[in-house]
Amino acid sequence: MKYGARNAIKAKVKSVKKGDVMSLVKFDVTDPAEMASVLTTESLESMDLKPNDEVLLVVKAIHVLPVKE
Amino acid sequence: MKYGARNAIKAKVKSVKKGDVMSLVKFDVTDPAEMASVLTTESLESMDLKPNDEVLLVVKAIHVLPVKE
Amino acid sequence: MKYGARNAIKAKVKSVKKGDVMSLVKFDVTDPAEMASVLTTESLESMDLKPNDEVLLVVKAIHVLPVKE
Amino acid sequence: MKYGARNAIKAKVKSVKKGDVMSLVKFDVTDPAEMASVLTTESLESMDLKPNDEVLLVVKAIHVLPVKE
Amino acid sequence: MKYGARNAIKAKVKSVKKGDVMSLVKFDVTDPAEMASVLTTESLESMDLKPNDEVLLVVKAIHVLPVKE
Amino acid sequence: MKYGARNAIKAKVKSVKKGDVMSLVKFDVTDPAEMASVLTTESLESMDLKPNDEVLLVVKAIHVLPVKE
Repeated sequence: MKYGARNAIKAKVKSVKKGDVMSLVKFDVTDPAEMASVLTTESLESMDLKPNDEVLLVVKAIHVLPVKE
Repeated sequence: MKYGARNAIKAKVKSVKKGDVMSLVKFDVTDPAEMASVLTTESLESMDLKPNDEVLLVVKAIHVLPVKE
Repeated sequence: MKYGARNAIKAKVKSVKKGDVMSLVKFDVTDPAEMASVLTTESLESMDLKPNDEVLLVVKAIHVLPVKE
Repeated sequence: MKYGARNAIKAKVKSVKKGDVMSLVKFDVTDPAEMASVLTTESLESMDLKPNDEVLLVVKAIHVLPVKE
Repeated sequence: MKYGARNAIKAKVKSVKKGDVMSLVKFDVTDPAEMASVLTTESLESMDLKPNDEVLLVVKAIHVLPVKE
Repeated sequence: MKYGARNAIKAKVKSVKKGDVMSLVKFDVTDPAEMASVLTTESLESMDLKPNDEVLLVVKAIHVLPVKE
C-alpha cells in the first residue's frame, strides 16, 4: 500500500473511549519516527526554521487516520 | 502554553525545502511519543480497534503545525 | 456561489445520526463525480501516480462540508 | 486494510500537475459512491438537514488522501 | 445558502500571491466576528477553558475556505 | 512562541458545551483581525479573486485550535 501522505507512524492501541458519534483512541508510538509538515513559505520565514531547531509538532487528534492491515 | 490538541510531539528540524508558496519541513522525533486519534464510532467499530492492535497512523503533512518557543 | 475548493459533489441526504455535540450524516452521490487531491510532490513521486492508475480516495468525514441552497 | 475514515471512494487518475512542493491530481470516480460528513449538531440543526435534501458536499483537495495498492 | 460549519466570517481580499499549484490570499475581516472551536473534551479539561479566558485561535491557512457570491 | 500558521486570532471564551468525547467552545474575537487562506491556483482562478472582493471565509470548528498562555 502506498499513501499520499508524508507521515505514516507505527503505533499500538493503548486505550479506546467510545462516544455516541465520535470516539477517542490513544496509541503508543513503537518505532522511532520521522515526521513532515507543509506550511506556507511565509510562516516558515517568520518562524525562521532551520536544521537542529527544536519544535513542538501540534496535531489535532481529528487529523490522525488509523489504518489497520 | 496549553494547546487544544491531543498531539504535541517534541522534534528537531532535519531539512527544509522552500517552495514558491508552500514549503516542506522534515523532523526527527526526539522523544518517545504517545499519539491520539478521533474518529467516528462507526469507523472504530468497523475497524474493531482494541488495546495492543498494531496500526499505522497516517497524517497528511499539511495537518502538522510546528510551534517554536 | 463560487467555492475555493476543487471538490463540490452533488448528493442527497440518506440518514442523520444526531449526537450530543457532533452528528453524522450520510449521503448518496447523485451525479458522476470528478475529484481532486493536493499532496506533496514527494508523496506523488513515491506513489508514482500516473493517468489510469486505480486508487482509493480516503477522506475523513470531518473534512466534508455540506452546503444547502 | 481497514481505514479510520467513513469515505473511501474508488477512482482513476485523470491528470497530474506537478509543482515545486505541492502537486494536484485529478480523478474520475468510477463507482457509485456514498459519502459521510461529521459536523456539529448545532450546524446540523441550523441547516435543518433531513433525508432526501439535496446538498453540495464541498471538500478542499488537500483533505483527499489517495491510497494505491 | 446554509453551511455545515460554525465559522463564516465576512472579509475583503487584501492581496493575492499566485504560485505554481497553490496560492495564498490575505483578507481583512470587516465585521466583528464570533468564532467556534471543536476539540476533545480531554483537551478542554486539560486547558481548563472557561468564560472570559483569553486565548489565541490558531488556524492553518489551508483550512480557510473562501466563498464568493 | 511562533506558530507555523498564518492565522492567530485573539479571542475571549464566551461559552462551553461539554460532550462525551468532543466539546464545542464559542469565542468573541476581540481584535480587528486579518486572515489568510491557501487554496489551489486553479480555485483562485475559477473564483477570480482580486483585491476588494467581498467573500465569506468558511472554517469548520474542528480546524480551530485554541491556545492559552
